[in-house]
Amino acid sequence: MNGAEALLRTARAAGVDLCLANPGTTEMPLVAALDRVPGLRAVLGLFEGVCTGAADGYGRMTGRPALTLLHLGPGLANGLANLHNARRARTPVVNLVGDHATWHLAADAPLTSDIASLAGAVSGFVHTPKSAAGLAEDGAAAIAAALSPPGQVATLIVPADCQWGDAAGPVRPRPAARPEPVAEAALAGVREALGRGEPALLLLGGRALGEAGLRAAAAVAGATGARVACDSFVARMERGAGIPAPDRLPYFPEQATAYLEGFAHLVLVGTCAPVAFFGYPGGPSQLAPEGCRVHVLAAPHEDAEGALAALARDLGAQPGAFPAAPRERLAPAEGALDAATLGRTLAALQPPGAIVVDESATSGMPWFLAAPAAPPHTLLGLTGGAIGQGLPCAVGAALACPDRRVVALQADGSGLYTLQALWTMAREQLDVTVVVCANRAYRILRVELARAGIAEPGPAALSLTDLGHPALDWTALARGFGVPAVRVESAEALAGALRAAFAEPGPRLVEALLG
Amino acid sequence: MNGAEALLRTARAAGVDLCLANPGTTEMPLVAALDRVPGLRAVLGLFEGVCTGAADGYGRMTGRPALTLLHLGPGLANGLANLHNARRARTPVVNLVGDHATWHLAADAPLTSDIASLAGAVSGFVHTPKSAAGLAEDGAAAIAAALSPPGQVATLIVPADCQWGDAAGPVRPRPAARPEPVAEAALAGVREALGRGEPALLLLGGRALGEAGLRAAAAVAGATGARVACDSFVARMERGAGIPAPDRLPYFPEQATAYLEGFAHLVLVGTCAPVAFFGYPGGPSQLAPEGCRVHVLAAPHEDAEGALAALARDLGAQPGAFPAAPRERLAPAEGALDAATLGRTLAALQPPGAIVVDESATSGMPWFLAAPAAPPHTLLGLTGGAIGQGLPCAVGAALACPDRRVVALQADGSGLYTLQALWTMAREQLDVTVVVCANRAYRILRVELARAGIAEPGPAALSLTDLGHPALDWTALARGFGVPAVRVESAEALAGALRAAFAEPGPRLVEALLG
Repeated sequence: MNGAEALLRTARAAGVDLCLANPGTTEMPLVAALDRVPGLRAVLGLFEGVCTGAADGYGRMTGRPALTLLHLGPGLANGLANLHNARRARTPVVNLVGDHATWHLAADAPLTSDIASLAGAVSGFVHTPKSAAGLAEDGAAAIAAALSPPGQVATLIVPADCQWGDAAGPVRPRPAARPEPVAEAALAGVREALGRGEPALLLLGGRALGEAGLRAAAAVAGATGARVACDSFVARMERGAGIPAPDRLPYFPEQATAYLEGFAHLVLVGTCAPVAFFGYPGGPSQLAPEGCRVHVLAAPHEDAEGALAALARDLGAQPGAFPAAPRERLAPAEGALDAATLGRTLAALQPPGAIVVDESATSGMPWFLAAPAAPPHTLLGLTGGAIGQGLPCAVGAALACPDRRVVALQADGSGLYTLQALWTMAREQLDVTVVVCANRAYRILRVELARAGIAEPGPAALSLTDLGHPALDWTALARGFGVPAVRVESAEALAGALRAAFAEPGPRLVEALLG
Repeated sequence: MNGAEALLRTARAAGVDLCLANPGTTEMPLVAALDRVPGLRAVLGLFEGVCTGAADGYGRMTGRPALTLLHLGPGLANGLANLHNARRARTPVVNLVGDHATWHLAADAPLTSDIASLAGAVSGFVHTPKSAAGLAEDGAAAIAAALSPPGQVATLIVPADCQWGDAAGPVRPRPAARPEPVAEAALAGVREALGRGEPALLLLGGRALGEAGLRAAAAVAGATGARVACDSFVARMERGAGIPAPDRLPYFPEQATAYLEGFAHLVLVGTCAPVAFFGYPGGPSQLAPEGCRVHVLAAPHEDAEGALAALARDLGAQPGAFPAAPRERLAPAEGALDAATLGRTLAALQPPGAIVVDESATSGMPWFLAAPAAPPHTLLGLTGGAIGQGLPCAVGAALACPDRRVVALQADGSGLYTLQALWTMAREQLDVTVVVCANRAYRILRVELARAGIAEPGPAALSLTDLGHPALDWTALARGFGVPAVRVESAEALAGALRAAFAEPGPRLVEALLG
């Protein structure tokens, strides 16, 4: 057995069952070994950002790492943006990055580069094996590192000779760590703060946003009068009818500080103290108001769900006692198509159990506000701000959950960074419905120009925010990758296209031309 | 005047006239300033790799750096693969990477990352300004660094507050360094070696591959009996009827060592000692045969052209005295379409003065061998092995040379990494003819599997090298981006499509389905 096979068998034994691959010459022994390890599915992406974004989506849905298989420094580089998102989502991912044979590195061949520096920018664990004999052990360490709570990106840089050289065989997986229980002192401090009757906010993120966490937080709120909010961008959150829907911390700092104004206590559960997404002249970095006391109930690596349950129990609040208010299911919208009618129509028609990957940028808020009335579903958000995450993440979610419908609610500008994901949807016949919010502009940048005081942008600034000249034809792009597609220009047509898409297996793209 | 405007005015004064941009919020002051600096053209790419690859192509054709404008770490990350190619091509490029305001970095906002580590992997110069007042001076330093012979990537990480803060104004450009003249001792050593009558090879790269260098090398060869070859992958080379065509060092190491076998002297001109592109089990790193004496006539940063001219003069060999053998222009091929008939047809029909960007991978050798009979043209090659270089490089070459036809001879698998370049071709109405060599496979990886001893790849290995399921429709992809396109399946149809494409301004894509 060579090192490559020993590594992959070790991964399989640790529960890894997916390898998202865009390999090259230096990964050939790993490619060949994939055919010798049953249960480890290989899925090709035509661009590395597809592989890494899919690994992020897969990890968010399963809690287990997928492997990526990438070709030296440039291959890793192409995957970095979505690894950045995975890092911010705290998703377990294990990258296998091939490198030149150890003895060939000194030659500085054309593809040689500083892979470790690239990997370090997104990884909590980076290691370069030195021998085929040690590769399986290094792989077990990488998997354990990825699973170390709350989850992180682990990168193994695998020289070609460590792949093709002899190895003894796979090694046993290392025991996976669990999230640390919250200290009683933290619980007591939060109980004390919430008991004062002063305005308090529970800010939830990470593992607090599962259904149990949301119910427990709602129960705490019901018992204490605290409000509940979630981060502006969440890795994963359960939503829909019957599930308590927290507020969403506003995106722009002045809106966020206005929302937070007046809270005497900010209780962090599975997340960190809120900060501005960007700094603006004269604006804040930290969003919590002056004088507000910040309490850490559960840091991201701690057991946020258990902490919320304990808190609810200590307060005598039964999660079941505070169900979400019942909501009437919306009807699809009619008339002109814009973000509002799109959001309402999608919320009205999305099937039960959908996984909605939201990279809708400026077009998505109406859907977000309407979706609590939709059937229960899972939301996956853009955690790291590196656009081009939606379509790959949808691929990974669909690979993780073949029995659920995935909806990619996708801004057009962002979608173009990694549109190659469409081909993997077609090849693997994934049940993904892509809804492109086609406003034919980097709309957020128009907003940002205005915020920067550029009331009337000149031709250069306008051209750098315009996607309409020429107009992109998403239906042609989708067909080019093998995905059936339709363009709609009214809410009724959107409803028809969504009904048709949800009724059929396999991928379909709906280009929603927004007025 | 703010720092952003002072920086861009400094760049303009230094001769920079192009900014390839994919900006975001942290670059808004630079975007706005573009409208206040006449003569600095802003061109949008829908993906950062388009911008960086275009900057590479532009720099190769002009010898001057273009600016790229990229959004924090993830934006730079998306551009790294083509910056890696630019690094290996020794192309001058200046990256402007926006970052959070200096005072906001400590907040570790979602888009915060270690930009300097990413930049360091591809840049010879990395600097993070600390103030708006110093930004113009830092810009001048970055431009001078990019132009430092032989040329390199320079990256300026520009915090947002350094862009929007007050600055005194632009600063004067720094004087550009010139390639160092070659020392007389090096010339004398090479003269002595070539005078021995022993088998000798001149290996040319970099600046030696201009027309003057090739003529001088041919003259030296004529006077001494030496052979002349070029690197396997060249940044830029002049070719075509009347221009001496050197051998090309073979790609696979066993072929390269066979070619080099028997040479007693290897004279390096504008390049480094040849190494294997990849290391294989039992294979070499260094390709020069044992006992072969390696002479450096001109290192990459030295004046290779001047050194060859001096050497020819010292040997009494007039460059004009050894013209390239006249060649009859080929006729287009007929019949079935494959790499051979494609190559011959393109060489037969390419217009005079074309710039051919060759990212054809396994499909390009017949064209390369036929092209010396084509009218004089410029070849731009894939220097760093990071695929996805061809289409962006073609964008940059067309922006640099609006009076010349650009041909992108493009492997289908590689082209998919940065296909967004098609949109910039359409928006800017660039005279680019894209010829997609559609073999619907990562053919080189099939070859590499065989070389790794995998005679019969299993289903996983086969699927990871297959692009045919589903088949990609390049004509639909092109139309989606606004580029007219046609598919051809015979040599005659290819000839017709090429004639039509070359007769019209603007971009067009020809998908050549290879049998």
